[in-house]
Formats: sequence, C-alpha cells, structure tokens
Amino acid sequence: MKLYEKFADDIERLIRQGVYRHGERLPSVRQASQQHRISITTVLHAYLLLESRGLLASRPQSGYFVNLERADGERQMQDLRASKPIAVSSTVDVSRLVLSTLRSIGSGDAVPLGSPYPDPVLFPFEKLNRYAYTAGRDKTLWSLTNALPPGDPRLLRQIARRHLENGMPVDPNEIIVTVGATEAINLCLQAVAKPGDVIAVESPTFYAMLHAIERMGMKAIEVSTHPEHGIDIGELAAIVKSQPIAACMVMPNFQNPLGFQMPDERKRELVEFLAAADIPVIENAVYNELYFGDAHPSSLKSYDRKGLVLHCSSFSKSLTATYRIGWALPGRYRDQVEKLKFLNTLATPLVPQLAIAEYLERDGYEHHLRRIRKAYAQQANLMRAMVSRFFPEGTRISSPAGGYVLWVELPAKVDAMHLYQLALERGITIGPGYMFSISGSYRNFIRLNYSSPWSRRIEEAVIEVGKLVASCAR
Amino acid sequence: MKLYEKFADDIERLIRQGVYRHGERLPSVRQASQQHRISITTVLHAYLLLESRGLLASRPQSGYFVNLERADGERQMQDLRASKPIAVSSTVDVSRLVLSTLRSIGSGDAVPLGSPYPDPVLFPFEKLNRYAYTAGRDKTLWSLTNALPPGDPRLLRQIARRHLENGMPVDPNEIIVTVGATEAINLCLQAVAKPGDVIAVESPTFYAMLHAIERMGMKAIEVSTHPEHGIDIGELAAIVKSQPIAACMVMPNFQNPLGFQMPDERKRELVEFLAAADIPVIENAVYNELYFGDAHPSSLKSYDRKGLVLHCSSFSKSLTATYRIGWALPGRYRDQVEKLKFLNTLATPLVPQLAIAEYLERDGYEHHLRRIRKAYAQQANLMRAMVSRFFPEGTRISSPAGGYVLWVELPAKVDAMHLYQLALERGITIGPGYMFSISGSYRNFIRLNYSSPWSRRIEEAVIEVGKLVASCAR
Repeated sequence: MKLYEKFADDIERLIRQGVYRHGERLPSVRQASQQHRISITTVLHAYLLLESRGLLASRPQSGYFVNLERADGERQMQDLRASKPIAVSSTVDVSRLVLSTLRSIGSGDAVPLGSPYPDPVLFPFEKLNRYAYTAGRDKTLWSLTNALPPGDPRLLRQIARRHLENGMPVDPNEIIVTVGATEAINLCLQAVAKPGDVIAVESPTFYAMLHAIERMGMKAIEVSTHPEHGIDIGELAAIVKSQPIAACMVMPNFQNPLGFQMPDERKRELVEFLAAADIPVIENAVYNELYFGDAHPSSLKSYDRKGLVLHCSSFSKSLTATYRIGWALPGRYRDQVEKLKFLNTLATPLVPQLAIAEYLERDGYEHHLRRIRKAYAQQANLMRAMVSRFFPEGTRISSPAGGYVLWVELPAKVDAMHLYQLALERGITIGPGYMFSISGSYRNFIRLNYSSPWSRRIEEAVIEVGKLVASCAR
Repeated sequence: MKLYEKFADDIERLIRQGVYRHGERLPSVRQASQQHRISITTVLHAYLLLESRGLLASRPQSGYFVNLERADGERQMQDLRASKPIAVSSTVDVSRLVLSTLRSIGSGDAVPLGSPYPDPVLFPFEKLNRYAYTAGRDKTLWSLTNALPPGDPRLLRQIARRHLENGMPVDPNEIIVTVGATEAINLCLQAVAKPGDVIAVESPTFYAMLHAIERMGMKAIEVSTHPEHGIDIGELAAIVKSQPIAACMVMPNFQNPLGFQMPDERKRELVEFLAAADIPVIENAVYNELYFGDAHPSSLKSYDRKGLVLHCSSFSKSLTATYRIGWALPGRYRDQVEKLKFLNTLATPLVPQLAIAEYLERDGYEHHLRRIRKAYAQQANLMRAMVSRFFPEGTRISSPAGGYVLWVELPAKVDAMHLYQLALERGITIGPGYMFSISGSYRNFIRLNYSSPWSRRIEEAVIEVGKLVASCAR
C-alpha cells in the first residue's frame, strides 16, 4: 500500500469515527503535510482519493470539506448519457488519422494520456525475459514447424486453465494463438463476414474494431450503447429486423472507451437474441482480467450454446504488450480461423509463447493481476477525481468498472481535435473522440489513459488539459 | 570442409590428373571404404557428389564409372520443361489442403523432405537468444508504442545497409517491418488490388502467393514459367492485352519450387514491361541471400523507376524463421502498407527485431551466410545426385541456383498425392505438386527440401521415395 493510500485510509477512519464531521474543513494540504511529515503530493493524492470515494468535496480557494451526504462512489460530476448514434451503415475510413494520432501519442516524451497501451512498468518483464532466454536455448524451438497454428500446446493448456479458473471451461483444442488480439479480431471477422456485409458495433466503439471492418471492405452500423449496461439490445433487434446484419462486435467488459461491465443478465440476453437470429458475435475480452470488482466478469462466450460467440483476448493488457500474444476461441468457426491465421502470418513466434506459458505455470499470475487491478482501480479514482476537480462545468465522466481508460464528455463547444492539437503543443497527448465512431458523434469527447502510476507529471498534465478545455468551452 | 567433400576433391584431382580414366570403374564403395579407412557413408556421399559434378556415372549392379564426356554440372536426368498452364483466371481455393499437408509435413518424427522451412541447425540461434535476452532487459522496450510500424530504427538501418551491400541502395524510411514475409506479401497485395481483381502469377507458384490471393477474394491467372528464365513475359503481355491485370506476383530468385535465378536482362525486361503497363509487381525475395553463384542476385526492385515494385523479404530463410521478422519495400505504396500493417497486427514484437539488429551490427552475418550457402549448394548436389540415381526413368529435376528446394517431375502415371500418402505411411514427407497451382497442372510433381545437413536418414528416405515412385510408375 502506498503512503497516500494509507494516509487516505487514516483520514477516512477519522471521518467514519466522527472525528471529522460533515461540512467540516480539513487541514489544508500544506498544514497536513507539516502535521504528518509527509509530502504535499502525498496529501493531495490522499485528498483526491477521498474525493473520489465521495467523502470529501473541494471548494476552489477554500480547501477540502467532509461531505457525508454523498454515498461512497457517487459521482461529483454527472454521469455519461447513453449514446444515440445516427444508426446508418457506413463504409468505414478512420484508420489513417487514427494511426497518425496514435503515433504522435506514442512517440517522444509527451505525457501519454491519449495512449491506448498499458504502461509496462507494473509488468513482470524481467521474469518473462528470463523465461524467454531459457526457452530459447532449446534448439528444437527454432524450427518453424513447431510454431504453426494453432499454437504451442503448453500455452494452449495454460490459456484453457486460466479460462477455467475464471469460471469458463474451454477446450484447449478450440484455441488459436494469434499475434495479439488485433490479429484475432481480424481473423474472426473475416471468418464470419465478407466484403460488403454490415457489422453491428457499439457506439462509441474501440477503433480497432472499426479498422478491422474498414479493412475487409465491410460496413459498420453503430448501435446506441449505455455507459453502464452496454449495447442497446432493443435497438439492435430493430436494426436486425430492418436489414441483414452479418455479425456483431462488442466489448462486454470494461469497454474501450466507456469502461462499463455489462450486467450478466444483459450478456445472456444479448447472446440469446443473437443465437435466435443466427448472428455470430465477436467478443473483445482484452480487459477482462483488469476488473475492479470482487470477481472476474463473465464472458458472452460462457452463455454460448451454438458456437456463435468468437471470443478474442490477449496478454497485452495484463502481462506484456510487446510479445504480441493473443488468442481466439472461435466456436464453430475454429477451423476457418486457424486457416486464416496460417494465411495471415503463418505462425506466431514460439519463444514468447513459451515464456508466457512458463510464467503462467509458475502460478504468480494471479498475484501480479491483483497488484495491477488494485493499482488501476486507484489510478482510476485519482483520474476521476482530478478531472472532476479541474475540468469545467458541463463535463461528464465515465465510471470505469475495470481497465485503464476514462471517457470524458466535454462541454458541447469543445472540439476534441482542436484540443488534441493544443495539448500536443504542450507535450500532452489525449485520445480524441472522433476515433471511436464513424458517425462523427464524439467530437467533444476524449479518452484519458490512467495505466501509468500516478505522478506529479500526470497531475500537472490533467490540470493543463482542464485549463485548455475551459478555454475552449468559453 | 566435410570429410566426404575432401575425399571427393581427392578423387576429382585423380580423375583430372588422368589417374582414373574415362570409362574406368572406380573402387566399389566397400573397397574404397577399406582402402581409405573411411566410412561407407562417406564414400557414398563423395561418389554422389562427383556424380552431381558430372564426373562419375553409376550403373545399377556395376558401380561407379568415370565419365569425362559430360561437362561439369551437366545433368544426367533431363531438364525440366517450361510450364504450360491452362491460363485461365480462377478463384483460388487451395489453402485448406495445403495447411493439413504442411502440418503433417512439420509434425512428429517424419523425415521432412516436404518441409518448406529451413532446418535451423545451421542458424546462430544461441547468439540471437543471447542478444534477445540483453535487449529485453531494457524496460523501455516493453512499451508497445516503441513497436508500432514501421519498425525499430536500428533494424531499419541494418536492413537498408544489407540491401546496400547487396548492390541496392534503399531508403530506410521506405521499409515496413512485418511478421515474416507472409504478412508483407498479404499487405502488399491488399495495397495494390481489391476483391475480384486478377493477379498474374508464375506456374508453378509458391502456394503462399496463391493463399494471399485466395484470402483477399482475388483471382489468380497462371503464366507459363521457364525453369531457368522465369515467367514468360511474352505470354504475360498477351494476357495483359486480353484482360485487366491488377498486379503481378513473382519470385525472381531461387523461385519456390523451381529454384531458378531469372537472368538480369529478363528482370529488367519484366520491370519495364510492367512499368509501361502501369501494373505493380510484388517481388518475393526471401531466398535472395541463399545464392549458389558468385554474387548476390539482383532484385526486380533495383530496376524499378516508378515505385511499382513491392519487394518482400524476411530473415526466415537465412537467420531465424521462428522470430517471424520480415519486411516490405513497397515503393509508392509505402504509406498504405504501413497503415495495413497497423490494422493487421498492430506491431511487430520489438525484442526479436533488436536481437536481429544486434546480430547484423556485429558483422557476422556474411560469414554465416557463406557457410549456409555452401552447405545448401552441397546438399542440393547430393539431393540431385540421389534423385538421379534412385528415381526411375522419366523423372526430370530442377537445377536450383539457390535456396533449398528441388522440383521433381515424376513419370506421368505417378499421382503425387497418392505418393505423398504412401511416403507418409513410411514416415517420410514430400511436398505434392498440387499445392503450387490452381490449374491442377502438377499432379505428377513433388518438391523436396534439402535444408537439413545430409544424413543416412535422409538418404534412405530418398531411396525409399524413389522405390515408391517406381512402383507407382508401373
């Protein structure tokens, strides 16, 4: 536990015990720093954390006040509203701009609030590197024939075991190892649909889904998506009645960018509706391990009776992104996906597969995951608290149930692309909302990444973006 | 130098010096083994090598005879004839059978004469593994943003340097690193053509080219291909006149399966013809480093003035296959290929890129290549000699100028798929000809791999296949 967390817990106990009363002003940051002999940053972090827990409210120029009228976790800012995209099919063409945005987001020394990638600082890369080295000493592994699809048997077993531990028994023979979830999603999409077909997606949706659709010459249709319940099944049903839908692509857990976890009942309902309509669904599950709640979330796949759910995942968000190891559970499309994998990249490098298998066999994964889940949950709170505090009125923020991104609706006047440029000039990247849609619905939205350990640099960047938003909103 | 090579050189000197005269019978394998106190295998290898040099002829039941009437390298068996495919466009669908064939070829303990992959025994995997380990200790490399296209700058520089050393100056900024040449070919094809388009290919052609075409929903048209000069430019011109051709895909050096090196003049002619017709050409150059001649072969790319040549290569045949590091030089299609790379697999793993960059920087590559070129050239001679000796009359064999595969035309009665099954039952794999065409032209052809160091096991396998061919030909 970090010092600021401990300090926040201490203060919370004092509030719960009535030492600090409702409406009472807490010691200023400076005072608390002197009283407790801890840094100003630590105090500020603790206060922000308490604010995000709903126990403190801040008033500009006045300081922090105990606020017991707001239940834990209640938001100071308004909730996001369910999206209402213009539900027309459209040939997708967003990838070029996204690529250049992502490149600038990733490059150089900018503060990567726009990055879609995890900060690997919490990942066990030293162990993986060592396991890779040991695996690589076996010369039989350097023969390509051992790397052909579906994947290394040791890794297949470990992936199946992991699914089982997470409550979903999986046949190792169904698994196809891929070059990250990106390849898995591409292959699954190609297995279920053909050029010209229409694919139903959430709105907003993770742009890699739109890219896959664009690339295959298919069309996307955006379906309204509730920031807590997920895709609107009623609206989807109406769309399916009005036109042929070849497949549906969703991210039921910790959706990028919305962060919601679809309730189990709605997952089941979605799977049953699609099964009745005989429509395959591609499930992007890359954030599943990064839940903030008590238990691993269920997958659509676990409700699948007809083999119509194509579950795609990877180790990129939870263990290592640069090894590019993902997998697909393609249900009844297994053989097609295996063949497409072979055609697309022939084989997945073997040494990284074995390094990950070794890591999983040694049983430290759950411990590591607990650590990063906790860190991300805290960082989510801090990011929410900072945005609440430093972004202008009219801002709405998501309430992520897992993962490491926050979706922020800015006042209507703000053009996120303009904001993106202004922030970039100040050495800060943000994820502009236009990337997440083909309908242009999210021009005043941004996505913020909180995968990096909290730091003064990030804090200052968020404050700076808040100022830019305020100036754009005027 | 291996013992059998030394022994072969000794005998050759004796023949050149007239110690052994034309028509004279050499000591039997057993006698020579006793005389020189070397193993029977060594003598047999040496005799086979001399046979392939055209200095010995073997007569069943009689032994080996000096044959000075055949010039060096002249073939005992007949040359292959130029292919005459039925030149109709066709929707390709060969990949499923090929995948299952390749899997059986690669799996278990079979003698892998059918394998398309190099035997990594000659590759410096220990060094690469060590460099990978060292590179992987730098934690900044575990961030995915550093692995985004086009590729690691160190590797891009080394690839450019290598091209320069091989006589082709290349701008490092043109290079896109990919997951093997397979991905490069797929991306390049998608950059230049769309579903329904017709792509001109050699006949026979490397099946991965057919797979790429199949996968994109395009059509292939096979063009007659001479076993030494390559694709028939006149026939290609006639096809281009009769129908729109979106692109051409060729393998001008050490074509898989024919093994030819297209003469420079014909390369230039092909590039100029396609440039005049404004047709892009995808050049598969994966075997370029494995030449048997004196100098590195030229690439189509070096004759390219209009940016219409998309050059694809990899380190898979020459350094490591399992790292899956390839690249494309897509000329004027560079930005499209970069975007497609991003869409297809997002990033190429960074650690293998750096391990290869480190290896190339340390300057041992040329030494390593000389070693494997020499080994492959000798193994080619041995394989040719063995097939000449043990396959029945009516067999024709290719004369590879580089690479590690031999293309064998069997007597017309032999069905290579049937032969494949028979050989597989005996623990031997071969590459049946049907994989290399969509027109069914090569049902009595097989491809044999000679990338593994020569061994008694391989020898016995070749003899066994020869017997099977003979029994099928009856």
